[in-house]
Amino acid sequence: MADKYFSLRNVKFMMNEVFDIEDILKYPHFAHLDKEAVGMILDSAIQIADNIARPASIDMDKKQAEFENGGITVHPNAKKYMKAMGEAGLIGAITSMEDGGSQLPVSLTSVNGYIHSAANNGITSFTGLTSGAANLIVSFGSEELKQTYLPKMFGGEWQGTMCLTEPQAGSSLHYITSSATPTEEGYYKIKGHKIYITCGDHDVENVVHLYLAKIDGAPAGTKGISLFVVPKKRIENGQLVDNDVKTIGIFHKMGQKGSPAIHLEAGAHGDCRGWLVGEPHKGLSYMFQMMNEARIGVGVTGAAIASAAYYHSLQYAMERPQGQKLNIKGQDANAPQTLIINHPDVKRMLLFQKAIFEGSLSLIWQVARYADLSHVCEGEEKEKYQLLLDFLTPVVKTYPTEMGIQSVSAGMQVFGGGGYCEDFPLEKLYRDIRITAIYEGTTGIQSLALLGRNITMKNGKAAMAYFQEVQKAIADAQTYDELKKYAGKLGEAAMSLQKVTQHLVSFAMKGEVERFLADATLYMEMFGIVAVAWQWLLQGTAAKKSLLKGGLTDEDVAFYESKIHTMKFFFAYEVPKTLGLATRLMDEEVLTTETTVESALFV
Amino acid sequence: MADKYFSLRNVKFMMNEVFDIEDILKYPHFAHLDKEAVGMILDSAIQIADNIARPASIDMDKKQAEFENGGITVHPNAKKYMKAMGEAGLIGAITSMEDGGSQLPVSLTSVNGYIHSAANNGITSFTGLTSGAANLIVSFGSEELKQTYLPKMFGGEWQGTMCLTEPQAGSSLHYITSSATPTEEGYYKIKGHKIYITCGDHDVENVVHLYLAKIDGAPAGTKGISLFVVPKKRIENGQLVDNDVKTIGIFHKMGQKGSPAIHLEAGAHGDCRGWLVGEPHKGLSYMFQMMNEARIGVGVTGAAIASAAYYHSLQYAMERPQGQKLNIKGQDANAPQTLIINHPDVKRMLLFQKAIFEGSLSLIWQVARYADLSHVCEGEEKEKYQLLLDFLTPVVKTYPTEMGIQSVSAGMQVFGGGGYCEDFPLEKLYRDIRITAIYEGTTGIQSLALLGRNITMKNGKAAMAYFQEVQKAIADAQTYDELKKYAGKLGEAAMSLQKVTQHLVSFAMKGEVERFLADATLYMEMFGIVAVAWQWLLQGTAAKKSLLKGGLTDEDVAFYESKIHTMKFFFAYEVPKTLGLATRLMDEEVLTTETTVESALFV
Repeated sequence: MADKYFSLRNVKFMMNEVFDIEDILKYPHFAHLDKEAVGMILDSAIQIADNIARPASIDMDKKQAEFENGGITVHPNAKKYMKAMGEAGLIGAITSMEDGGSQLPVSLTSVNGYIHSAANNGITSFTGLTSGAANLIVSFGSEELKQTYLPKMFGGEWQGTMCLTEPQAGSSLHYITSSATPTEEGYYKIKGHKIYITCGDHDVENVVHLYLAKIDGAPAGTKGISLFVVPKKRIENGQLVDNDVKTIGIFHKMGQKGSPAIHLEAGAHGDCRGWLVGEPHKGLSYMFQMMNEARIGVGVTGAAIASAAYYHSLQYAMERPQGQKLNIKGQDANAPQTLIINHPDVKRMLLFQKAIFEGSLSLIWQVARYADLSHVCEGEEKEKYQLLLDFLTPVVKTYPTEMGIQSVSAGMQVFGGGGYCEDFPLEKLYRDIRITAIYEGTTGIQSLALLGRNITMKNGKAAMAYFQEVQKAIADAQTYDELKKYAGKLGEAAMSLQKVTQHLVSFAMKGEVERFLADATLYMEMFGIVAVAWQWLLQGTAAKKSLLKGGLTDEDVAFYESKIHTMKFFFAYEVPKTLGLATRLMDEEVLTTETTVESALFV
Repeated sequence: MADKYFSLRNVKFMMNEVFDIEDILKYPHFAHLDKEAVGMILDSAIQIADNIARPASIDMDKKQAEFENGGITVHPNAKKYMKAMGEAGLIGAITSMEDGGSQLPVSLTSVNGYIHSAANNGITSFTGLTSGAANLIVSFGSEELKQTYLPKMFGGEWQGTMCLTEPQAGSSLHYITSSATPTEEGYYKIKGHKIYITCGDHDVENVVHLYLAKIDGAPAGTKGISLFVVPKKRIENGQLVDNDVKTIGIFHKMGQKGSPAIHLEAGAHGDCRGWLVGEPHKGLSYMFQMMNEARIGVGVTGAAIASAAYYHSLQYAMERPQGQKLNIKGQDANAPQTLIINHPDVKRMLLFQKAIFEGSLSLIWQVARYADLSHVCEGEEKEKYQLLLDFLTPVVKTYPTEMGIQSVSAGMQVFGGGGYCEDFPLEKLYRDIRITAIYEGTTGIQSLALLGRNITMKNGKAAMAYFQEVQKAIADAQTYDELKKYAGKLGEAAMSLQKVTQHLVSFAMKGEVERFLADATLYMEMFGIVAVAWQWLLQGTAAKKSLLKGGLTDEDVAFYESKIHTMKFFFAYEVPKTLGLATRLMDEEVLTTETTVESALFV
């Protein structure tokens, strides 16, 4: 296995040169941090990745979690990891110190998350979900809930989960049927089934479910959904006692086998107690806090898996001799084999991998920066950054996962037959990454959110703020001769995207909702390419600036030139895909909405 | 599991309306066949698929073949399948009756192959390889080799294999080191390692390896490769005795787990005998007969897996309620859920699946027809069809596999979370199909064959013949008003492809081979889209003709309309992808050849 699964050099370039983290640290909210402290936290995150996450990666896949003897046993490193993360203050990483957290910027925690997911993409579910669940309690829970659950959760002793999906209600939470019956003791009696609950049960001291259910008599649909804390074991007289939430099945997944996906039944014996979080019927809006955090987390996972795959493929390509260079005239029968990295097609696949995952990371860290700024700024600035964060969240979920899948597939192809076999880690990564386009809202759902909600929200204010950001990057790049051409290409692609957007929105204005949204997934694909082109232009500009400063080591020069080269690759190979997408999106031919005869479609 | 994995209605449409099989049967070579006989052979193939192949599909994946106690044990249905195929005369299906075969047209056997691979994509390796290996002996082997091996192989009692890859020589056979030392007894002593040998060993009576090795003192490189029959057990005094070909390992693959991939060692004890096939040093050219058959076979497998996935997804989409239709104004809290097939994005994914696999099948059967015509025609016609067959073989290997992978992935997405779990067959099919873009020459290798060899072969005569076929289809379609628009689109795309071809070939003329071939894989992608657009236009034209004839049942009308609708989908959603590909392929910016600084690329 390759030793390398991420590049610290790239992380530092992104944190310090593309996005200046010190810029964030100057706000009073982060007064307890300086650059040195950030470096130390990063170092300790890397230690955890190297010592606990990475060594268990293959093993967690080979010996998948099973439901046996009424319980779920996971790899011991999962609990070690939770513990270590708790001790390092990284489960409550973004939580305020007042609430027992470390009050770190997302710009830092999303770097840690990337490194950990690249080391072992299943293991981060354990802490990611615990963190998200605990933060829901922080935001909306009562003092009592906070005191009961937060210390154990932030300490990595209790697992947190999000319980949304039910057998009859997956993407459409509207139709959940889990019920909550009020009692005079203050708690509710919970009854229902939940499926695909990641880390929903295992051999940890306790599991704390953040559970969506409907209070008896609640309004139909999403407006009647409330949020509850439903622990696996509740506390009675200082003791943990069974709370009637039972695992009744485990899903065998194609990948990410180390983090179990559980089928839970609550209240089979009428003794499951849940505690309301916040107000009744507002559960879904609360849950969106966790869902949005999780969506960005899934984007991070996609980019991280693609990163690990890239470094494996790169190492293999630099070690594996096969064939002769194409430009050897005829066949030189006695020539030795060349390394496969010397074949243009292999270089193309590696550059594709690199362009995708480094571009994805850039977009993720851009949005992390918006998250931080929305937190620390005030007034109009705060609103702008909050809008940009909300606006781009579906894209950050989708591009790194959908394109990450393609990127890992290219990485497998670099290995040839070996890539398809267990001898190399690519086949595992290929299986792992596929779930990222499904969970936390499928690509189809994210695309509806982007086009159907975000583009038009606040009368297009978010979209406008976004295109201004893109224009700013173009203007900055245009001051460098080498970058002018790419700035121009981004400008063209962004203009084409705006044209497509206007065209589609015109259907919404006419009330033709199906027509408006029918190709939302293609719109997302086009939007994602433009967004990552923007990020590559930012990276290229930062690299160019550093190159012009001079006084660099050879290694630094190579690094910056590699950045610019990969930017050029993205513009040459990825951006032209927008041409076909725009053509389809502007096309008047309607083929997938109700205007077509269904019976004739699928014979 | 869905009962349906292929559509007999579609098979009949393709065989009788798009490609008229009776047209082939009229040649003297097929005088023993008529339409009724073809129907009976098809029926018996379906019986074997339903009764032997299909029931073992899941089981062969769950209990993968293992190397235990010195041997390989495979699922019992593998041997049953070989036997049944032998008894039905379907292992020697295309072999002449003179050589013990059934003398069937490829236009029929490729239909059988599709149905069997759709039923169980691993199981067809057992007979496909046996058939290919036996046909090599038929074409180039001595009378003695024929008498010794053919009856047992065509009877499904002995397994055949192709032994090409070695640990140090995968895509580049130039560098194989297996050696053959002549003896005075007429056989050669074989020594060497072979890896990834599909069905290379199992609990069958004997395994007959068609084995590439170099005779001592042979010229370096591919011009010194000879072909041998190397049986697992050789015959001495009428007894089968051990021939010193040992399994020393099995590869654990991500999918297609039922057909073992073996690491063989020949001659570890100096007692492995091989019998030369044909003349010395001509082995690679002989092997190309089997490789080309196998390449088409892999294309069939890709389309077949995509077919099975489609019918699973379709059934699920027609049974699974989730969410409300997009055009319901606001949220109707009390509306029931709609079936997911009513969501445009789900329809889009299903139409994508259908457009890909039915388009792939059409291309495969087009090429099967060329294979038959090249066999039965004479003179210039024979040459033309042989050229078209050779020309399109890399495309038939690549499009159905690369796009099949995308198609199965869309099929998984239709299932949501279930698609990622073992509960539904999509996760298996997703794993299975990925190998098809790797074995029998990766996509990169096929793309070099298409652009680097086929486009320029015989001074472009094959390419010219191909574009004439496309023009013929366009002219035919243009006589129907509804099809004119699509004929026009195909014409534009074909013209763009020709322009790109000329642009790239100009580099070859200047001797800039790397520049010529650097983006061969993208060229293949563009070529494949145009080729399948051509096939969709043919299908649309055939459907239109039948609709105009009238006198149809409602079911027939729905079938033909579905064909035309899917054709429109392909032109609306797939053909525009050629715009971006052409832009990249015409672009002067060189990013993956030696002109770039390697050290700077991959930091």
